[in-house]
Amino acid sequence: MSSLSHINDQGLPSMVDISQKQVTIRTAIAESTVQFPEEVFEQLSGQNFLTKKGAVFQTAIIAGVMAAKKTSDIIPLCHPLALSTCKIDIEPADNFALKVICLVRCEGKTGVEMEALTGASAAALCIYDMCKALTHDITISNVRLLHKTGGKSDINPGK
Amino acid sequence: MSSLSHINDQGLPSMVDISQKQVTIRTAIAESTVQFPEEVFEQLSGQNFLTKKGAVFQTAIIAGVMAAKKTSDIIPLCHPLALSTCKIDIEPADNFALKVICLVRCEGKTGVEMEALTGASAAALCIYDMCKALTHDITISNVRLLHKTGGKSDINPGK
Amino acid sequence: MSSLSHINDQGLPSMVDISQKQVTIRTAIAESTVQFPEEVFEQLSGQNFLTKKGAVFQTAIIAGVMAAKKTSDIIPLCHPLALSTCKIDIEPADNFALKVICLVRCEGKTGVEMEALTGASAAALCIYDMCKALTHDITISNVRLLHKTGGKSDINPGK
Amino acid sequence: MSSLSHINDQGLPSMVDISQKQVTIRTAIAESTVQFPEEVFEQLSGQNFLTKKGAVFQTAIIAGVMAAKKTSDIIPLCHPLALSTCKIDIEPADNFALKVICLVRCEGKTGVEMEALTGASAAALCIYDMCKALTHDITISNVRLLHKTGGKSDINPGK
Amino acid sequence: MSSLSHINDQGLPSMVDISQKQVTIRTAIAESTVQFPEEVFEQLSGQNFLTKKGAVFQTAIIAGVMAAKKTSDIIPLCHPLALSTCKIDIEPADNFALKVICLVRCEGKTGVEMEALTGASAAALCIYDMCKALTHDITISNVRLLHKTGGKSDINPGK
Amino acid sequence: MSSLSHINDQGLPSMVDISQKQVTIRTAIAESTVQFPEEVFEQLSGQNFLTKKGAVFQTAIIAGVMAAKKTSDIIPLCHPLALSTCKIDIEPADNFALKVICLVRCEGKTGVEMEALTGASAAALCIYDMCKALTHDITISNVRLLHKTGGKSDINPGK
Repeated sequence: MSSLSHINDQGLPSMVDISQKQVTIRTAIAESTVQFPEEVFEQLSGQNFLTKKGAVFQTAIIAGVMAAKKTSDIIPLCHPLALSTCKIDIEPADNFALKVICLVRCEGKTGVEMEALTGASAAALCIYDMCKALTHDITISNVRLLHKTGGKSDINPGK
Repeated sequence: MSSLSHINDQGLPSMVDISQKQVTIRTAIAESTVQFPEEVFEQLSGQNFLTKKGAVFQTAIIAGVMAAKKTSDIIPLCHPLALSTCKIDIEPADNFALKVICLVRCEGKTGVEMEALTGASAAALCIYDMCKALTHDITISNVRLLHKTGGKSDINPGK
Repeated sequence: MSSLSHINDQGLPSMVDISQKQVTIRTAIAESTVQFPEEVFEQLSGQNFLTKKGAVFQTAIIAGVMAAKKTSDIIPLCHPLALSTCKIDIEPADNFALKVICLVRCEGKTGVEMEALTGASAAALCIYDMCKALTHDITISNVRLLHKTGGKSDINPGK
Repeated sequence: MSSLSHINDQGLPSMVDISQKQVTIRTAIAESTVQFPEEVFEQLSGQNFLTKKGAVFQTAIIAGVMAAKKTSDIIPLCHPLALSTCKIDIEPADNFALKVICLVRCEGKTGVEMEALTGASAAALCIYDMCKALTHDITISNVRLLHKTGGKSDINPGK
Repeated sequence: MSSLSHINDQGLPSMVDISQKQVTIRTAIAESTVQFPEEVFEQLSGQNFLTKKGAVFQTAIIAGVMAAKKTSDIIPLCHPLALSTCKIDIEPADNFALKVICLVRCEGKTGVEMEALTGASAAALCIYDMCKALTHDITISNVRLLHKTGGKSDINPGK
Repeated sequence: MSSLSHINDQGLPSMVDISQKQVTIRTAIAESTVQFPEEVFEQLSGQNFLTKKGAVFQTAIIAGVMAAKKTSDIIPLCHPLALSTCKIDIEPADNFALKVICLVRCEGKTGVEMEALTGASAAALCIYDMCKALTHDITISNVRLLHKTGGKSDINPGK
């Protein structure tokens, strides 16, 4: 095996064999940010589109959950996993942005960081889709892992 | 209709009706950036993982193309579209990053910007997945539309 | 061909060949009803779960739209169709029930009644799923086509 | 948590976290009814389309099984589950109707009633699709849970 | 472009751009063969499992049709296509084998040979699955294109 | 139950109930062969398309892995399984052919031979798709199981 677990000795893509790994409760939390132009953000807020219970947030939550569940169909070398939960939270953030937080949990043999990142990405893309009638000058950034537990050691890149 | 075309008068999510729109050739180009820590990027480069024909790039291209094709299954209110093509290009960028460019074209009644953004996101997530054995301190940013033609007017937010 | 277009002369399942049919704008409207026990319906109403913008309705709308889009993956002999729109409306109905209306439109060579029925069914199943913590004594009924246009003749079974 | 387990304190859709629940063998049985006009039912029977081994029944069985397996892709907040089995039975019923019974079993942490209901619904929709060349005056009704075991307590709403 | 249309100048996988191609009615016919040990074939025949209307054939037909419809989700660089029909025929062949014939038709800009080959393969795999309780000494062979029309010139490799 | 486990007493398709079976580590290895005309094989080799790290092989590996993961969505009566790994190897073989080997492993209650066969088939179909610009005179053959362990007894039909 090369230093990249998804690439074999011949330099070819290869799914990791997790059959000998321990079953533990795995949790991962990822985030993403959707950045709007100031005037668009103000317009969206003023028209009550960015309220918790508005259609933008609710549709994005569903999009994120459903995408997290099908991560192994989107990311070629990911294992199919029976997620125990996927929770999406969306909050206004500084500088005319929305922040998406996606928590995924699974009792299984491999981490769920790709599921959390995929859920955070899909929710952000859905927010873009819901708001693009006003502008296409929207940017998704800061898609990253915040926290990961249940594997050999905890990981906290998001500090 | 509200000022957001995906939300109806009652504030509920609603798919746009494109049956009366013109069929034109629609093109959209989106990008995303995968940012690595300097030492990881150097290690990946030094071990030839970031060459054009390496497994990281080739797997990410396939991931991006396949995700773009199933955008309407990932983004709830997107229309199913018979894409004419999806092309993904990945290049090293400044500051220890990879840049993904995704071009989507379709002869149809609605724009393909969500397909381009979804392809660029999925390719970036796949790069993350392929490289995460080295670090989880990877960030996907700058997911945005560069260019869009074929609709009522051309859009170039990415300038 | 037998009198059933989906079964061939040998009595075997067979997809209809629509290659010689006319492209027209096809519309279909279907409905379904979700029936609750009186006390559960009152409890749901009293706790504001059955408001237009509540999570029950919004999630069910998304479920219906996404299922309508993938009808050809759920109903074996349905043609894949590029839907122009799918609109779901949910309203309280008589006798402690919710009524789902699903409109589907497509410019194509075959009717979209199965898409409308599939959307109405999935939205109803989602409402069941969202409310089943209170009771499993919920029944989905009256799943039927109301109206269909764009084919050889209009059909209005739902009168 | 609100009284609806799929809706959080903020009134937003939320997937239940089943990571702490017990693994048990879960079974659910659901039914649905497909109601035909008398003359259509007689015509179908007379032409032997409603025999056990005819294409209508066999295609509907496959539709039901495949839909039950992908319930988590159809119902947004359902958990992905590795079903142990899904069995569909279709029988003529009173008043020119067909009755679909769908049994689903799974060794897991959450009930499989939505899988059974989704299988029963998809089989009924497939019967509709197979027979709609004769009439669109077909109604699916009585989609409900009959029996559920393996959870905290058995549930028998279908009595 | 290299001599392989799916590989670009840099040697990387690339989806062909069909936006400038002509819309024509495209047809492709592919076949596959499922070869059994003599005694197993005789046993299957003797128990009436290989009759036209038996569950083996009917399930395999549905498997083939559904797989053909989702070819673009199975073969990475295939275009999503709205098939006009997919017809599967299964016949006993020489030497204790079954022959699957899959015809696919589409009005579109690119050929449907991969759809026909995918349908023929999936039907053969389903036959294997249905019969594997008797033996695993089953071989699928001769998966090939017989005929293709609607493109620049007709192709008949299967002569 | 009939002698075919996928067909019930009534002769209808039926998913096996595996809820009482033992969880073991299951492995299956299947192969397929892609046969080219001599001159095409030489041309492909001469232009370096059949090198290990070329786009033909890498795309086919991804196609095989992704198809193996969704076997239960392609083969109607297969159980959904959480694969531990899927590994694809492609090698030049005698007589101007490529041989695909697909290994699948799963900790579960049923064998993974259909997953291995589906992976081997999809990789072969992808090779066909990547090379069909040169010829359609390509045949996929010898799709068969080589080896299977983890069930009641080991099976080695591929000797």
